[in-house]
Formats: sequence, C-alpha cells, structure tokens
Amino acid sequence: MSSGTIHELTALLSRLPGIGKRTAARLVFHLLDADTDYVRHLGATISALPDKIFRCATCGNLDESNPCHLCADPSRDATLICVVERIPDLWAVETGGTFRGRYHVLHGLLSPLDGVGPDDLNLALLHQNVTAQQVREVIVATRPSVEGEATALLIQQTLADTGVAVSRIAAGVPHGSEIEYTDARTLERALADRKAM
Amino acid sequence: MSSGTIHELTALLSRLPGIGKRTAARLVFHLLDADTDYVRHLGATISALPDKIFRCATCGNLDESNPCHLCADPSRDATLICVVERIPDLWAVETGGTFRGRYHVLHGLLSPLDGVGPDDLNLALLHQNVTAQQVREVIVATRPSVEGEATALLIQQTLADTGVAVSRIAAGVPHGSEIEYTDARTLERALADRKAM
Repeated sequence: MSSGTIHELTALLSRLPGIGKRTAARLVFHLLDADTDYVRHLGATISALPDKIFRCATCGNLDESNPCHLCADPSRDATLICVVERIPDLWAVETGGTFRGRYHVLHGLLSPLDGVGPDDLNLALLHQNVTAQQVREVIVATRPSVEGEATALLIQQTLADTGVAVSRIAAGVPHGSEIEYTDARTLERALADRKAM
Repeated sequence: MSSGTIHELTALLSRLPGIGKRTAARLVFHLLDADTDYVRHLGATISALPDKIFRCATCGNLDESNPCHLCADPSRDATLICVVERIPDLWAVETGGTFRGRYHVLHGLLSPLDGVGPDDLNLALLHQNVTAQQVREVIVATRPSVEGEATALLIQQTLADTGVAVSRIAAGVPHGSEIEYTDARTLERALADRKAM
C-alpha cells in the first residue's frame, strides 16, 4: 500500500500503548506534513532517551541524574517516603504538589500468578533507606486491588523490624464522582473506612 | 515534576494529533521502559522521514521515490484517475484493493472562507496528466460535504475542455450501518441517488 519507510514507521508506532494501526497511520501522515525541524527534533529526542535516563540508585525513579532530582533535593523531607508501583504513579502524586517527602518506586506489585515475588520488588533497598535515613513514616500508595493490598502488607512485614510507621493511602469514592455510578466494592470500602465528622 | 528530557519529549508528543498531555506522558513512560533498540530505531526512523519522503511530481502522493511507486507501476491503468483530498484518503482506497488505476492528490478542498482557492489545488497538473496520458475517466473521491461537492464541480469544469468523463463516488448509507441512526442528510442523498434493482 505505502512505501517502506511509511510502512515501517506505522508498524513501529503501532507498538506503543493505545495506538492502533489506524492511529499510527494518522500520526505518520501528520509527520509527513509537519515542520521538518519538529520531526527531526522529535526523532532525536526519542533516540537519545536510552542514553540520557538512568534509574535512581536510591529510590528507583527514572531521571536524567542519579540520584534523581527528587532524592537530591535538600528541601524535601527525607524522613517521609511514599511507595508507588510505577513512575507514572510518582508523577501523579507530584502533580498534586502537596507531598514534599521522597519516593520509592517498586516497579511492580506482588503477583505470584505472574511470577512476581517479594524479591522482584526492590524492597531490600527500601529497608536499607528506611534504616539509613531514620525515616519516620512510609506511606504505601499502591492501588486498591488484590495485588496492591498484598504488596502493602508485604511492605509492612518487611519493615516491621525497623519500627517505622507504615500507612496506607485512603480508598474510597473519588472526588467529584457520583455515588450512583460508584462500583459496589468502592462503596463497601468507603463505608467501612468512614471517618467521624 | 520530571527531568528536562522527559518533559521535552512529553511536550513534543503532545503536539501530535489526538495525543493530549496525559497520553504523551504515558507514551514517554512506555519508551523509558521499552527495549533500547526499539526506541533508537523509532527515533531514527522519525528523524529520517523528511529526507526520505518526496512529493510525487505526477500525482502529488508522498513516497520514497519520485514518481511514486503507484505512478511507476506499469500494471496500473494510467487512463483511470481517482482524485482524493489527502494522502490518507488514497491509503483508504488502496486498502480496499479493487481500484487499479492511478491517483491525484489535491492536498486540500476548495474552501474560500479558509483562503483555499482553485489555484491552491494542484489542478493544473491534473489537467496536464489527463491530456498527456489520454485518460478516459476521472473519479472524484472527495468527501460528501459542501467543500467536497464544490471541489468536484470545479474539477468537472477544469477538465471540461479535455472531453474526459468525470464521475463522482456514490454518497449514501454506509455498509453495515443502521438506517435508524443515519443522519437526515445522508438518507436524503441515499433516497435521491437510488438505483433501479
């Protein structure tokens, strides 16, 4: 149907999450017609990614520096650690702007059926950081699911000998949502975890 | 929130059609975690695009060669030309696989309000091709809209002196759709253009 390069780029873009063949073709067409400088800049930035981004040896974040800019920021509270499953979760918490502690990225959740055991979750490093930095609280911000809860429990057990306080983000009805359309499991949690007013 | 490169790539990707800030961030995260060879290959293919793709001097298609592989294909019927607005329209017709003639890409539709006049539509080249290649039929496959119809009429007028037959793709109820949910304008066209059985 189309030339080699167009076909190849369509196939490469189709491998990205949420981008099917039709969307990929539309993107390729857009790039064919787009400003040449922009296209070259986009390509070069993507190509350079693997050489520019490192995994932070302290918290597991991906950043241009190691330690990452969050671990290196002296204005952040090093005695408070928010544990997240993945980098986008860290970004989501950072976007809120209210959390001023540090992070720890697990890069996964406990999921024995998928072959993810306790040793795959970067927990030894968390234990080490908690001890070394005299951390006072670890907030587990994994998602409210079977895997998320199992991982939270595992973290609590792993850190039991350090004496650190381990907390869990609240599960409940999301802000702005309608009670009518909230799923039964969420409502059940929201009712069980109700707070005195 | 995130490092310079991550931020920059998110901004670059957000400029693509249909990709908002959230989707861009998700794509960047995917690329951070993806196979290094794939990421470099994707970047290099995008960067090389402006140097590899040319506009066919015969039909206006974008391809790795000039004339494009469709114009250069001797098995295609050079006396039958399908006129389309944009490259993706050409791809759509090619995907069907039944059309074995050649194409002519207008790169736009007549739209005086947007400042697109007859001279912006690559029509002189169409007239030249029709005369030079003894074309027997020109099928106008622009969309059924005010601009599409106006462009079709313009093409008919432009080619009047060549004596070529000019036809228009059928407008009507799309295959597999429900009559109940078909818009009034489409139904009106489908009734007016009814065919004897």
